[in-house]
Order: sequence, then C-alpha cells, then structure tokens
Amino acid sequence: MPEAWTRGGKPAADLSPPPGESPIVVLVRPQLAENIGAVARAMANGGLFHLRLVAPRDGWPQDRAWRTASGADPILEAAQLFPDTASAVADCQRVFATCPRPRHIVVPLRTARAAAEDLRAINARGLRAAVLFGPERAGLENDDVACADTLVRYPLNPAHMSLNLGQAVMILAYEWWTAAEPTPPRQLQTHETQVATKGQLEGFLGRLVAELDASGFLDNQPKRPGMVRNLRHWFERGEVTEQELRTLHGVVTELSRGRMRRGRPDPGDEI
Amino acid sequence: MPEAWTRGGKPAADLSPPPGESPIVVLVRPQLAENIGAVARAMANGGLFHLRLVAPRDGWPQDRAWRTASGADPILEAAQLFPDTASAVADCQRVFATCPRPRHIVVPLRTARAAAEDLRAINARGLRAAVLFGPERAGLENDDVACADTLVRYPLNPAHMSLNLGQAVMILAYEWWTAAEPTPPRQLQTHETQVATKGQLEGFLGRLVAELDASGFLDNQPKRPGMVRNLRHWFERGEVTEQELRTLHGVVTELSRGRMRRGRPDPGDEI
Repeated sequence: MPEAWTRGGKPAADLSPPPGESPIVVLVRPQLAENIGAVARAMANGGLFHLRLVAPRDGWPQDRAWRTASGADPILEAAQLFPDTASAVADCQRVFATCPRPRHIVVPLRTARAAAEDLRAINARGLRAAVLFGPERAGLENDDVACADTLVRYPLNPAHMSLNLGQAVMILAYEWWTAAEPTPPRQLQTHETQVATKGQLEGFLGRLVAELDASGFLDNQPKRPGMVRNLRHWFERGEVTEQELRTLHGVVTELSRGRMRRGRPDPGDEI
Repeated sequence: MPEAWTRGGKPAADLSPPPGESPIVVLVRPQLAENIGAVARAMANGGLFHLRLVAPRDGWPQDRAWRTASGADPILEAAQLFPDTASAVADCQRVFATCPRPRHIVVPLRTARAAAEDLRAINARGLRAAVLFGPERAGLENDDVACADTLVRYPLNPAHMSLNLGQAVMILAYEWWTAAEPTPPRQLQTHETQVATKGQLEGFLGRLVAELDASGFLDNQPKRPGMVRNLRHWFERGEVTEQELRTLHGVVTELSRGRMRRGRPDPGDEI
C-alpha cells in the first residue's frame, strides 16, 4: 500500500526490512493507536521492522497511528493483524515476553540488555523470534505469557515502574541496535584536525615557558618548577589538537607582542 | 506546592529526590507540555529527579504536562525555570549535551551508556552534572552546546535518528539506572522451588528408563544407548526444578500404571 505511506503528512523514511531475520514486535491488545505509531517510530530508531498486532482495541488501521509514527510509515503499512497471541507467534522459534511483574512460573529471565544479546544470537542462527508487549494498562495475561519461553524484565526504579508502551519498545529497540553497534563508547571528536603529538605540545610549552620567563612571571625561583609543572599538567590533560595548538601559538605571540610594546612604550600606544 | 500533586488526577508516586547529587535534566526551549510530562515520567522510571526548564515555549506550569506524567508529579512540581541555558547550568561542574548531529567542534563524545557510567562516577565525586536536551524539532543551538563539556550521542539507526523528546530522556534515564543496577542479566526465576540437583534428576531418569525398558520402548538393543542419551540430553538442558521433577515422577507413575492395566486387561477397562 505505498499510496498510504504519506498518510501522516510526513515523507516516509527510507525504511525497509533488515536483511535476514530480525525480531518481530508483537503488541498484544494495544489500546491507543497513538501508541502503536510511537512503537513504530521507536522500532525505526532501533532498526526493527516487523510489527504484529493482536486484536487492537480500536481496530486497524487507525490514522492516529500514522500521526505519531514520525515517518516510520512503512512499518505500520507492513504490520500484520492477528486474533490472538498464539497465532501471532505460531511461526516463531523463540518468544520473549516483556513482563514487569513477577509471576509464579518457572521461566528464564533476562534484563533488556541480555535479551537483546540473546536475540542477536538467535537471529544469527536464522531462527525467528518475537517479543510480546502487553496492553497499556493491564500488561500481558497469563495465557499470553504462556506463549513465551523467556521473560524480559527492565531494571528500572521500583518506585515508578510504569512504562509507556512506546518507551518499553524504545528500550528494547535501543538495546537491539546497541548490541550490534561498533561505536566506541568514548572518543574525542576532532573533525579535520587531530590530537597533537606530545612533541608538538612540548614545542608549544617550551615557547610559552620562555615567554613567561622573559615576562618575569616565573621569577620566583623556588616556586618556578612547580608552576611550570602545573601549567604542563593543564595542557597535557585536554588532548589539545593541532589546530588548537596553532591558535595557542598565536595567543602567545600576540600577548608577548603586547608585553614587548608595553616594555618599550610607543607614542601611539593607548596604554 | 504539595496541593498540586494530584493535578493529573492520578495519585502522585512515592518519588523524592535521590540522596546526594544526581544529574539534572535540562530541557532547552521545550515546545510541547505533553513532552515535558513524558520526560518527568521517564525520569521517574530511571530514578532521576531534578528537572530544569529553559524558556519553555508555552510558559510554565502547564496542566498538559501533569496529564502525561503518569504520577511523576513531584518531579514537575520541583522543576526549576531558567531564562537561558547558561544560567540553568551555572551551578554545575559538568554539563553533557545530547546531540544527534555532528558539529564542527572538538569535544569528547560519549555513547549514552558511557555517559551514564561517567555520570555515576561524577556523582560519586560529589560533583553536580546536568544533561541538556534540545527542543523537539530543532535540537540544541550552538550557543547551548557551547555550555557543555561533553556530547552524548545515542547509537541508533542512521536511517531514522529522530527521537521523541521523552524517548531521548528515557534512554538516558534507563542507562543511568542500569549503570548502578545489580540485576544479573540472566537468571532462571524459580520462586518457591529450586533447580533440582543432578542426583535428583538421575533418580528420575533411572526410573524413567526402567519403565521404558519394562514397556518394551527400548527393546532395540543397538539403538538403546543412543535413545537413552538423547532423552538424558533433553532433561539435562532445561534446568528442571524439584517441583517439576515431582510432577514428572507423577506422570511416569500414571502412564506406567495405564500400561500395566493394558498389559493385564481389566473387565472395567474401556480399552
């Protein structure tokens, strides 16, 4: 139904099913179409595509879903409708259920992070997995949970566990994406320039200290070594870039020129 | 303003500021009051409390925020209002900015997970940290980002990066909580019972094999060792509990009684 992709008035994002298998998000008896749209948006954020709806309260499709999907329309267009949870997962080898409340069943439990890692592994074996999310107020019923082989519990503040449906899917989608994400957790963004070498920094520090010696700033001989070390530590700390080092050279040049001007007063100098 | 805590019609959750410092969420020029409420709810989910608002478009307070906060009213009641970003972070030692788009500045970058770990460490040192979130459509401006010492980038699907404001705060709050969460990532929930010992399982398997021998199921002598091993593997795999083992003993008793009845036909037997 490509003609419906513009229903929400926004251009549909360039979303297509990921190659190979990827986990299916199953919304069990969702109540608000706005939340179904928010779920599609969260799925798009995390690189999930397959959405199944079990008996949505207000029927399907609903324009309100497209309005909150923020361009994740292809996910909504491809969503499949099922009468009950068992039929929605009948073709899946593995079924996870998100379930905030403990239940008196014997079942493997996973945090969202471990569930995402497991889903990546299941996916890599070519198995089809689904993740169940319950209705907004009530959550999954026992018969829904009985379709699952694994429960997913999000570690969150026990004083305020109630998650919006879109948020619940967002966390899983985020963990799904992150489980395969090669982004280094910590880096310095430097764009065109790069972090200066210690030799380049040394060249600058030598010049700076020479200028400070010339200015008399380091005249206190007993304190001089400590003062120089403190200066060094500050400049060493921040991973200064080559570009910043050029700027700092310019600053030293400019400031020492002012000092030299002041040292030899010029008739035209405003000081 | 405790009298306002019931504004949303829901009982206010039992939320109070966490002891010691915890990161401040700063919403810069937020547009929709509903999103401010969703942010408060997400903060409550992740154990954050301190909310600052920089020049919200429609003024503050707004009843619509309380309607989407789902009981996180204390966070909204305690929210502080500031005219600009610089004044909102003036008392903070560290400022992180969430920023999906690359900018041509030299700045430390963190994933959401690494940022949460850093925030825990900063917090443990007793320093006050803030995290900036930009307006819904435009994101943070350069002058806002200039107030930050670190950028946070969420690893997400580059084909669909646009995050709802509540979702953006949810991921950070979730990572904040998770960074201090001792929940084991994988466990078997067993409630009152516990996983059976290998000796208990052995007792059951011995009985099962004896009954299968008696029934003739294992009469094929060349295949017998392999069949027994396959059965063993299946029972070993699932971490059977003591309670389940009692049930399985009952099943074997019941089925072998049926076999014995069939072996010695009874006048009252329906077969």
